[in-house]
Amino acid sequence: EPHLQENYFSRETLDRLSARRTDEVWLEAKQKDPDTVYLLFSNLSPMVSASQEDDDEGHIQLCRLRYEAVKDLLEKPSTVLIFLGMERMKNPSSSQTSEPPVWFAVSTDEDPAELLRRCREATCSFPKSGNRDLLKFSEEDAGVVAQARSVLAWHSRYSFCPTCGSGTRLEQGGYKRSCLNSECRSQQGVHNTCYPRVDPVVIMLVIHPDGNQCLLGRKKVFPAGLFSCLSGFVEPGEAIEEAVRREVEEESGVKVGPVQYVSCQPWPMPSNLMLGCLAAAVSTDIKVDETELEEARWFPRQQVIDSLFRGASSTLIVPPRQTIAHQLIRHWISVNSNL
Amino acid sequence: EPHLQENYFSRETLDRLSARRTDEVWLEAKQKDPDTVYLLFSNLSPMVSASQEDDDEGHIQLCRLRYEAVKDLLEKPSTVLIFLGMERMKNPSSSQTSEPPVWFAVSTDEDPAELLRRCREATCSFPKSGNRDLLKFSEEDAGVVAQARSVLAWHSRYSFCPTCGSGTRLEQGGYKRSCLNSECRSQQGVHNTCYPRVDPVVIMLVIHPDGNQCLLGRKKVFPAGLFSCLSGFVEPGEAIEEAVRREVEEESGVKVGPVQYVSCQPWPMPSNLMLGCLAAAVSTDIKVDETELEEARWFPRQQVIDSLFRGASSTLIVPPRQTIAHQLIRHWISVNSNL
Ligand SMILES: Nc1ncnc2c1ncn2[C@@H]1O[C@H](COP(=O)(O)O)[C@@H](O)[C@H]1O
Ligand SMILES: Nc1ncnc2c1ncn2[C@@H]1O[C@H](COP(=O)(O)O)[C@@H](O)[C@H]1O
Ligand SMILES: [Mg+2]
Ligand SMILES: [Mg+2]
Ligand SMILES: [Mg+2]
Ligand SMILES: [Mg+2]
Ligand SMILES: [Mg+2]
Ligand SMILES: [Mg+2]
Ligand SMILES: [Zn+2]
Ligand SMILES: [Zn+2]
Repeated sequence: EPHLQENYFSRETLDRLSARRTDEVWLEAKQKDPDTVYLLFSNLSPMVSASQEDDDEGHIQLCRLRYEAVKDLLEKPSTVLIFLGMERMKNPSSSQTSEPPVWFAVSTDEDPAELLRRCREATCSFPKSGNRDLLKFSEEDAGVVAQARSVLAWHSRYSFCPTCGSGTRLEQGGYKRSCLNSECRSQQGVHNTCYPRVDPVVIMLVIHPDGNQCLLGRKKVFPAGLFSCLSGFVEPGEAIEEAVRREVEEESGVKVGPVQYVSCQPWPMPSNLMLGCLAAAVSTDIKVDETELEEARWFPRQQVIDSLFRGASSTLIVPPRQTIAHQLIRHWISVNSNL
Repeated sequence: EPHLQENYFSRETLDRLSARRTDEVWLEAKQKDPDTVYLLFSNLSPMVSASQEDDDEGHIQLCRLRYEAVKDLLEKPSTVLIFLGMERMKNPSSSQTSEPPVWFAVSTDEDPAELLRRCREATCSFPKSGNRDLLKFSEEDAGVVAQARSVLAWHSRYSFCPTCGSGTRLEQGGYKRSCLNSECRSQQGVHNTCYPRVDPVVIMLVIHPDGNQCLLGRKKVFPAGLFSCLSGFVEPGEAIEEAVRREVEEESGVKVGPVQYVSCQPWPMPSNLMLGCLAAAVSTDIKVDETELEEARWFPRQQVIDSLFRGASSTLIVPPRQTIAHQLIRHWISVNSNL
């Protein structure tokens, strides 16, 4: 069933079936199953085609390949294979005779142009992996992309054991890497070095003490007119609420009092967990950290509403609906006004 | 000012002053400052002494060493030095002539018995680093321990570059490790391989559909009678609320509907961020994952209240007040009963 406050990238389209990750016999059988779906990644970019839904202009969808189309790739030592999970039954009460299909992600360093020929779709491509392209999926596909891309990004950066520098071996359907050096300390006990990394990041809409303005900032690289919520990595030994206070003060000089968690979003660039909060400012003077931001400003509620509903004709541009920044802004507008 | 819902380990006793981490001249001057406080760690365990407060029975406090007592250690190549931050001014309006002291953590592999002689306290020790010992600090000391131990644990496990296997160099006051191989991909762009790891973990009190029972589980290693909240690592590409649903179903077979974030806790064993939630069960049958848990059971509200307020005389033992599991249980009792 759908749940409230679902953000883009957070739909769990597949059941991860983590208990199956250690069942090598089952995994191998599923690899060869003709119903199994394979997603192909090149350079962390998924193979996609133009969406076939009429109303989905500019939208894209994941190319679903079959075993026969990727079989040779699975044998290459440089290929990374991730077990993503099993499709959830649309109608769990119906007595289906067979299990729903399972999905894998395959990452390969073969020539991308060659790879595109494996798909029957005419419009196939590997988007340039800019953030914008990954925001064009349906909610269902976006959830799978978040999972697959985060795990693959980890493999692409963590192929050596950080504890001893030796090579590592991929295990458990792609969710573990074990050191090849039998003397390594990572072999004793359980250590995070063997498991994928997820980086918690706070992202917050800071509300002016008058309740009628919010603080937005822009980085130099943003398109002209675009302002977004402030954000920053949670540091070791730090609570979410304290990270919000620290990052806001570091980046804008504004002091924050109470902080309220709103919702979160997995952000697979490469593997962040965005923790979305409202933050009540207790000071108003802005002093921008110029290494992080080009500008930070208080925006009146009405200007923000105009930007959300009038779009391009507005002087302020806010991030697109797929971002948690957008959802935080909408949340503030909706809880505090009679729109 | 104090903030609501502060959990143990989450007090930010020091101002991290992250902008100073790149100011090597300032950091070096502060190292030699006679007011600077040094915490000494051996094997991830901090040097402590018995608390001097009369009412603090069994409590411990961090040994605060001075530059003269650690100066020689700072010169050894195997020593790891972390800049922790500056004491916050108790009275910011008072016109103090000098800056408040800054704190560093020093980790060394010198003989622990020798190290203890550097402190003037008679009762010094390095606790065996069992979780229990780290729960005996004041709130202020606990906050510093969370920060220092998490960062030091990262250095002890991530001394090699995971991208190429080369050695790394500590930078930015201990908050960055850079690859020594100038050809390494980690030198292009910004990558999490260079920064400390923080692992988000969901921990949840699951509430029975009748509203009057909660689900608690025990691992084999728990002391007899102790039951706690279920918990598990957030996976790549997963939202908090989905991780709660997945972990509860994996570990207990119980299905969860709505999830509500309550508060969080940094847990420096070695560097987790515990995300505390209430979770509403939509099914009640229990099927325990025996690799993770020995038992999981629904406990009636009254039995939980007895355990919280009668303590040892109860048949159920809940975790101590310093844990977010305890605080989640208390939260449930308080929002849903007229205690
Ligand atoms: N896990 C991480 N991944 C990438 N950059 C990080 C990470 N942790 C800290 N940083 C640093 O944080 C900067 C971005 O600042 P902020 O997002 O405001 O915390 C980056 O340029 C890095 O210097
Ligand atoms: N970052 C991590 N650190 C330690 N163990 C992890 C991590 N991620 C996944 N695991 C695995 O998760 C198990 C604990 O299960 P859970 O806490 O319920 O997710 C451990 O025994 C590991 O096999
Ligand atoms: Mg920042
Ligand atoms: Mg930061
Ligand atoms: Mg930032
Ligand atoms: Mg688990
Ligand atoms: Mg788990
Ligand atoms: Mg668990
Ligand atoms: Zn190793
Ligand atoms: Zn490297």
